[in-house]
Amino acid sequence: MNTSSQLCKLINVDLGERSYDIHIGRGLLQEAGKLISNLAPKARCVVVSDENVLKAHGETLGESLTQAGIEFSTLAVPAGEKSKSMEMLNSVVEGLLDAKMERGDLVIAFGGGVVGDLAGFAAAVTRRGMDFIQIPTSLLAQVDSSVGGKTGINSPHGKNLIGAFHQPLMVIADTDVLKTLSDREFKAGYAEIAKYGLINRPDFFDWLEKNRDGIFSNGAALIEAVATSCQCKADVVKEDEKENGIRALLNLGHTFGHALEGATQYDSARLVHGEGVAIGMVLAHQFSNRMNLCDMDTVNRVEAHLKACGLPTHPNEIPGQLPPAEKLLDFIAQDKKVSRGKLNFILTKGLGQSYIANDVPSSEVLSFLKETLET
Amino acid sequence: MNTSSQLCKLINVDLGERSYDIHIGRGLLQEAGKLISNLAPKARCVVVSDENVLKAHGETLGESLTQAGIEFSTLAVPAGEKSKSMEMLNSVVEGLLDAKMERGDLVIAFGGGVVGDLAGFAAAVTRRGMDFIQIPTSLLAQVDSSVGGKTGINSPHGKNLIGAFHQPLMVIADTDVLKTLSDREFKAGYAEIAKYGLINRPDFFDWLEKNRDGIFSNGAALIEAVATSCQCKADVVKEDEKENGIRALLNLGHTFGHALEGATQYDSARLVHGEGVAIGMVLAHQFSNRMNLCDMDTVNRVEAHLKACGLPTHPNEIPGQLPPAEKLLDFIAQDKKVSRGKLNFILTKGLGQSYIANDVPSSEVLSFLKETLET
Repeated sequence: MNTSSQLCKLINVDLGERSYDIHIGRGLLQEAGKLISNLAPKARCVVVSDENVLKAHGETLGESLTQAGIEFSTLAVPAGEKSKSMEMLNSVVEGLLDAKMERGDLVIAFGGGVVGDLAGFAAAVTRRGMDFIQIPTSLLAQVDSSVGGKTGINSPHGKNLIGAFHQPLMVIADTDVLKTLSDREFKAGYAEIAKYGLINRPDFFDWLEKNRDGIFSNGAALIEAVATSCQCKADVVKEDEKENGIRALLNLGHTFGHALEGATQYDSARLVHGEGVAIGMVLAHQFSNRMNLCDMDTVNRVEAHLKACGLPTHPNEIPGQLPPAEKLLDFIAQDKKVSRGKLNFILTKGLGQSYIANDVPSSEVLSFLKETLET
Repeated sequence: MNTSSQLCKLINVDLGERSYDIHIGRGLLQEAGKLISNLAPKARCVVVSDENVLKAHGETLGESLTQAGIEFSTLAVPAGEKSKSMEMLNSVVEGLLDAKMERGDLVIAFGGGVVGDLAGFAAAVTRRGMDFIQIPTSLLAQVDSSVGGKTGINSPHGKNLIGAFHQPLMVIADTDVLKTLSDREFKAGYAEIAKYGLINRPDFFDWLEKNRDGIFSNGAALIEAVATSCQCKADVVKEDEKENGIRALLNLGHTFGHALEGATQYDSARLVHGEGVAIGMVLAHQFSNRMNLCDMDTVNRVEAHLKACGLPTHPNEIPGQLPPAEKLLDFIAQDKKVSRGKLNFILTKGLGQSYIANDVPSSEVLSFLKETLET
């Protein structure tokens, strides 16, 4: 390991024969070749990435793979959410077949959430399932999308409606890479970190409040925050890999958030996913308070922390006009977190006491949204 | 159950939480609604089928579903192998989403192998995995493709290179439906039945030789033959669901067979899959004999039985010109049953004594193919 190995954390995602390790730390990109050749000594690799990531970090990864004696080629897809399409899936799958990848070879998903979801899904369906490794390069991908095996693309009917559960063989999260993220991207990723505290780890939320500076300055606290987030997610995924139950807790803030993303036509100039989640988490707490489930002190505390981190906490912070409450409710009802017509929400009984509510009356949600949009 | 229930067979595919039943017998299409509503009482269904199958049997299935109070809609795809494409996958997936299918609803794959593979794969990737039921209407689908969870589509690089392992919730095989098959389709499906005897059930092959008339006249022997075939496949799939080992035995005859299909550009006027398998099984036995593995009496017996069933047993029975042996070897090397460049074959040491050979020298295969094409 490199000289900063004392700063590396190892999290195991315990899923029986599909178990795998998440390596988190500084300078891990330089170690990727060694980690991969230890895991799959004879595998040939195709690196799936986007132009931005390749420009910033492609050389580092390439050198590491070459030094470890790994034969590899590269497939670049356009950066951005539009690459999560059936056309691009087809293009990546055909690219893997062009490269004569056989079972036993490896797909390396090297990028943010879009690349991870797309490349993971391509691996899932090529030759009925090829092994793949996640090397997430955004904070969001490191703490959320690279862990737990959800892969997929978007449909005209909605986001992530086409996909597979396909667990990676390994995740390598190099926190040095996060230094090249924009402030906005970093903050958006942080929303998912705060989420784990709010789901069921009030102690972690306390710690986040105290360590905000260390996290936002890419200090040792960031490694700790990423590792704890991965551990939180691994714990949930272990219990419910395919989201038949408690895995839905990970959607805290996402039902309102997805509705806002839909209402802004997924225009990232107006709202990115993590910002939607930040606003959505505040709304979920406010709505829980309205339903007499959660005290107002908790609502205020959550809102204050996210605000202090520079995240939006109210729909009126989104630039441009939003549709009326009725339209937002339509987006919520269209969301896949709907079971047989009833509204499913993640609500909370207090700080870090989230639970799955399956029978939320849509009339209550509508009134709440109307009041929120008027303030 | 209906009056012919004494002729129904039930086979369980034992795969832990993915276990399911195969119902085999006469008149089961009329019972499909009841079987489905017992299994998934509240599910809404989308029937994926092709125009030919819907014309012949759509009304019967529709009445059965309606009588059982099942809400359903229908998606028709063009008949034929060309529907196993990325475009058609996209069209079926979007059709399922148009129909507002939620997790817990059901896809019904109603047709031959093409419909089963396509609809099963669409179910596998819609909302990251929807339940589906196979109602196979060809003999090939009843004894092979509907059982075991292989789903997928074709790539310009080859057949079935894109797909997923996705087990159905249930298989309903109505042997009455087979009465509408052409002679050629029926014979081609029979090749896969004979295959199970040749893999590891010499007693079944004996029985098939004695019961040929009953099988080909759609008598009680046909139900027995379909049931035994499903049991043979279930036994193999139970041991090795994702083809890491012995499941490859099911490819007996398929390596030569796929090469012949490739060499005829998958032109079904010249060669259909089952015919390729029949010729391929004879070639696998002849090649095994050439390698001093299998006695000539067995080779002759296999060839004689398939001939008696009206199946082709030699490449020269394929209409039109075949490419030279070198080109056939290229097709074999391209086949996905290749591991790190070495040729994998299913060879045999005698009747019903097949095994996986991982190190067959390509020079031997080439000499054999040259001699075969010259005779």
